[in-house]
This record gives sequence, C-alpha cells and structure tokens, in this order.
Amino acid sequence: MTRNVLVLPGDGIGPEIVAQAVRVLDAVNEQFSLNIQHESALVGGSAYDETGSPLPEATLTKAKAADAILLGAVGGPKWDKLDMSVRPEKGLLGLRSNLELFSNLRPAILYPQLADASSLKPEIVAGLDILIVRELTGGIYFGQPRGIRTLENGEREGFNTYVYNESEIRRIGRSAFEAARQRGKRVCSIDKSNVLEVTVLWKEVMEEVAKEYPDVELTHMLVDNAAMQLVRAPKQFDVMVTGNMFGDILSDAAAMLTGSIGMLPSASLNAEGRGMYEPCHGSAPDIAGKGLANPLATILSVAMMLRYSLDAKEAADAIEAAVSKVLDQGLRTADIASEGCETVSTQAMGDAVLNAL
Amino acid sequence: MTRNVLVLPGDGIGPEIVAQAVRVLDAVNEQFSLNIQHESALVGGSAYDETGSPLPEATLTKAKAADAILLGAVGGPKWDKLDMSVRPEKGLLGLRSNLELFSNLRPAILYPQLADASSLKPEIVAGLDILIVRELTGGIYFGQPRGIRTLENGEREGFNTYVYNESEIRRIGRSAFEAARQRGKRVCSIDKSNVLEVTVLWKEVMEEVAKEYPDVELTHMLVDNAAMQLVRAPKQFDVMVTGNMFGDILSDAAAMLTGSIGMLPSASLNAEGRGMYEPCHGSAPDIAGKGLANPLATILSVAMMLRYSLDAKEAADAIEAAVSKVLDQGLRTADIASEGCETVSTQAMGDAVLNAL
Ligand SMILES: CC(C)[C@H](C(=O)O)[C@@H](O)C(=O)O
Ligand SMILES: CC(C)[C@H](C(=O)O)[C@@H](O)C(=O)O
Repeated sequence: MTRNVLVLPGDGIGPEIVAQAVRVLDAVNEQFSLNIQHESALVGGSAYDETGSPLPEATLTKAKAADAILLGAVGGPKWDKLDMSVRPEKGLLGLRSNLELFSNLRPAILYPQLADASSLKPEIVAGLDILIVRELTGGIYFGQPRGIRTLENGEREGFNTYVYNESEIRRIGRSAFEAARQRGKRVCSIDKSNVLEVTVLWKEVMEEVAKEYPDVELTHMLVDNAAMQLVRAPKQFDVMVTGNMFGDILSDAAAMLTGSIGMLPSASLNAEGRGMYEPCHGSAPDIAGKGLANPLATILSVAMMLRYSLDAKEAADAIEAAVSKVLDQGLRTADIASEGCETVSTQAMGDAVLNAL
Repeated sequence: MTRNVLVLPGDGIGPEIVAQAVRVLDAVNEQFSLNIQHESALVGGSAYDETGSPLPEATLTKAKAADAILLGAVGGPKWDKLDMSVRPEKGLLGLRSNLELFSNLRPAILYPQLADASSLKPEIVAGLDILIVRELTGGIYFGQPRGIRTLENGEREGFNTYVYNESEIRRIGRSAFEAARQRGKRVCSIDKSNVLEVTVLWKEVMEEVAKEYPDVELTHMLVDNAAMQLVRAPKQFDVMVTGNMFGDILSDAAAMLTGSIGMLPSASLNAEGRGMYEPCHGSAPDIAGKGLANPLATILSVAMMLRYSLDAKEAADAIEAAVSKVLDQGLRTADIASEGCETVSTQAMGDAVLNAL
C-alpha cells in the first residue's frame, strides 16, 4: 500500500529546512521499505506570488488526498501589506480549517545536550517535558463576525469574535486527556473564566470530559497565571490544554523555555488522526537562504508524522535516535550554537542526520 | 488642601498587605506634612459577602470623589461558583471602567538585591527594567455581545467580542509614547495582526500616533513572538504597549521574569492622571491571613500613587529608598526568601520599612 505525503515548503527558511527533512524521509523510506511517495505544492506567500492565492485549489485538493502533510513555514515582511484575505497565514489557516486539523500537539522538551541553550536556570528546566494541546480550528482565529467597520462618528472600529461551542471544546478536551493517558496522567486546562464567558463554558465542558477519564487528573489555571507559572516552574505541568489564541501564546513561550525552539516539531491532527506536521518555529525571513536555519525541528516533524499518521514507529525511532546522536557528536546550527561545539550549516546538519541513520 | 485617598483592601491577602501600606502612607503623611486623609471601603468578594455586590454604590461614589485609590487584591475560590455578574473581579473591572482608568502601567524591574530570585539566568535579567502599558477599559474584557447561548441543536456556545475603536487605541498609544519619552524612547506595540482584524487597526493607529512622537522609535511584534522574546531576551524591550487581554498575559510573564512579582506595583490612570494603585500580584488566597504575604508591592504602589496622583515626589522617593534599604539589610518575605537572608512576616516587613523611613 502506497502512502502519499504532501510536502509544502512554504516561505522564508521553509524550503531549505524541508529539503533536509525530505532527504531524511527518503532515506528511511528506503531503509524501512515504507512505500511512501511524496510530491510538493505551493502554500503561503510563495503560492500567492505564483497564483494570487495563499492556498491554491490544487494544493487543497492534494492536501485532502494525502495521508500526511509536511509543512515548512509561511509568512514574511514581503507580504505584510497584503489584504488579510490573501496573506500567507491564510494559507496555513485554510489548511487547518479545511482539513479539520483541530488538535495541535506542541511538545516542549529540553534536550539534555542543549541544557545550556535555555535562558532559564538549569534546575528550572532540566528534564522539562510538557505537551501543549492547542485547539486549532476554532476560537477567535475563526470566529464571526470579524472585520474593521466605520462607526457613525466616522471613526473606525476593529472587531473579532472569540467563540466555542460544546462539541468543539469536548473534542479537544478528549485529545488532551488521551494524550495525558500516554504520559503523566495530568491535564491542566487554561482559561480566563474570571472574565470571559466563552472560557466559563470551556472550563465546564472540561469538567465533563474529565469524568470520562477517571485515571487522569484535571486542574484549571487562569491564562495570566499560566504564563507566570511557565516562567517560574514549568516542570509542574504535564499536559496543558487551551484554545487557539492562548495556545498560540503559551506554546511559543513554552517552546522558548527549552532554548531549542529550532528543535521542536508539532502535529495538527483531525478526528481520524490524519495530520499536518511542521516545526514549532516560524519562517524566519531574516535568515532565509543563508544556510543558517536549523532543520532538526522539521526532521523531527517527519518522525512525528511517521509515528502518528503513517504507522511507521521504527522509522520514527530511527530518526529520533539519529538526531540525538548528531547532538551527542557536538554538531549545532547557529540557533543552538554553544562553546565547544561545532557550528554547522542547514545542509551539513542534514548530512549528519543522514550519516547517523 | 486636603487630598483624599480611598483604601480598598479587597480579598485574600489584600487586607494584610494594605494594612502595612497604610502605615507607611501615614508615616510619610506626617513626615512630609502631606495633608492626606484616607478612608476604607469594600470591594470584591468581601463586598459581595456584606452587600451582595462586588462594587457597592457607596464604594463607587467614594472612588469617584477620591484623589487616588489604593487597592489590595480581589478574588478567591470562595466566590468561584458565583454568577459572572457578581464575581469579585467585576468589582475591579467596574472600578476600572467607571473611572475610565484606561492606562495601566506595569513596570517589570529586577531589584539587584533579588537577582537570585529569578528563574532566568542572571545575565539574561540583570538590570531588567521594562514597562508594559496595557489598555485597561476596552478590548475583549468589555466587548459586547458576550455570553453563553443555546444553539438550535441544543448545544451551548460561549462568545466574547474583542473590539477597539481608533480613539481607544490612540489614547493608550499616547500614554505609551509619553512614558517612553521619560525612559528609553522606544515603544514596541504588540498585536496579532496576521490573524485578528482588530489588531490590524491597532497597528495602523499606533503608526499614526508615532508621527506625533518623532523622538520615540516604534516597532511592532506579534504576541506569540513577544511571549517568546520575553523569555529569551527581555532586556531588548523598553516600553511595550498592548491591549487588555494580551497585556494581562504578557505583564504577568514579564513580572515573573524578575522573580519578584511580590515587589511590583502598578498604576491605572485616567485621562487626568487620577488613578488606582495596586500590586501586580493577586489575592493569593492560599496564604491569606498567615502573615506570609509580601507587602512591598503595595507599599511601592503607595510610592507610585504619591508620585503620579498626589504630587508628592519626595515622599515617593523616601518610600522607595526605605524599601531598598530594607532589602539591603537582608530582610525577605517568604516569596523572595534567599539563603543568607532573614525571612520575616508581613508585619515585620512593614515595621522594617517604617524604621527605615
Ligand atoms: C502563522 C500564524 C498564523 C500561526 C498561528 O498564529 O497559529 C503561527 O503563529 C502558529 O502558531 O502556528
Ligand atoms: C483579577 C483579574 C480580573 C485581573 C485582570 O485580568 O485584569 C487581574 O488578572 C489583573 O491583571 O489585574
């Protein structure tokens, strides 16, 4: 049975990091006889430049047909002045919503080899391993009505709608509890229930979901406190579950705690476990094309893809072991450069992972 | 001329920390012949318990008449199950909106004496001094429509509205630029303009305001990146300006960077510079009544009040110098306890500041 992977390099450093990840995918495909085929398509700013749309029909059709998607990153200052409706980000958001990839898993793990890279004290982050489960197809990202209108007094007003219904909350809640079962069996749900009604409902539904998982502990935390606790004592968390907007903010903070955001993959899954895999970091247009980008988050996204969507656990393990070996060898890209280690280019890092495989 | 200060102890540790702050206020009042009178009123959960409202009419009337307000903190698990409309937080939010305290100044400063208390590496936070200017009477905190409704299919849906008009953005923008003029002359405006229309308008209006302040530099940053950058390299910022919700999250993260959130005061000002002063931290119900709370943030809020609303700069300086002296003496409350320092109670910390005055 052939499995089809759609590769979406995107913008900025996307193409260079994805190129290395595809080399790794090809290598394990051969090594483990996985029968994976892949093709590429356009998304984001580069898609807009060629077709006038950040998510061309052809890309969406291929995405719907694929067994899994590997994405680089989208966006950059070049497209900042475009109308919201055709900005690169709409390509990404369109994929998420059209494919109903509602469950975004963002691990924040400290690689022991990179302990120095964190801006936090070693004792605060040593052994850090938390998972942020972010709702990805609802909330204020997609809520209607939205826009900028002109008021009677001639002034403009901008508005967006933060909205969740019970089923949306329930299904992301279940994702989080399922994930917690495979880990530390603790879920912390993040809300702002002392101010926002939508998160009062969120909190209530989480309580209901918790009843289905008596073996998993549920606690609640306000989002402002969560931002503080991530800085103060991040190891107190196992799985954190939250909405689209809070998840965007908290997962980036959590990833940065590890000092190795260039190392962190993410998965965005639908109800059937089909998914899109991408690094946690962005398109970093300032270093694009310079061979400075760290391809490891994208390479590790391939591992996540093999494990979650392509039923190829051994190949996933092999990639993760290879990455670990490369770090042990003291190879580092610029973002995680460290005294006593060798700083290498994007391509050289790809070469090293291939050798280690 | 008599100046009237309204004292609102609130809930949790509020009463104990405010008690110490009032002793300090009384002391400088006498020492500098400031002619300040103060009276107390109820707000938050304790007000609800006595009157059925978290913001009784009597309190609001006194607040409107006062020259300045000193607040402890509100909220606690005791009132968590109450209807949103009478929760303790509504007392605080009602004061903010009724008095039009739209400009919330939240400094995040690392006290050199407390350098150890931060969870970040010393070189990342040494000398940290940033100011977060948070819009406090608009945005999603107050946007209409809001609530929880039942859909046709019988499911419930929660919704809130994130809304800003041009004048709201302009006046908080000016607050930030004015503040930056007194400091490092750099403003970083935080938005999510790649997704949310309301923040597209925010960004545009900030650009307009910037033209009035050619001596101040304006940059923009996405909120997810801002959360990362606060963890990675907080000293890159001078003044950050943002909306109510993002400001809530980022200012708590920023305060925690210093390891001394128990030390940080805040001011909420209206267009005439009248204001409410309160510690950045919350009501900490878990330690209430135990004499463990740190009164210094509230004492420093008195200093801020004297400086911004009561035209008593010398008294403000005296309080700040006294706090610094007490830290130099090695006295610490439990939250900032440190090896080689003496851990003291709330009251003993108040005593020490009075002695130092
Ligand atoms: C690019 C942007 C639209 C996106 C988001 O806000 O979701 C990104 O920040 C992310 O977290 O994947
Ligand atoms: C108590 C709560 C309503 C309040 C807020 O969210 O504004 C608090 O967190 C704060 O930051 O002052």
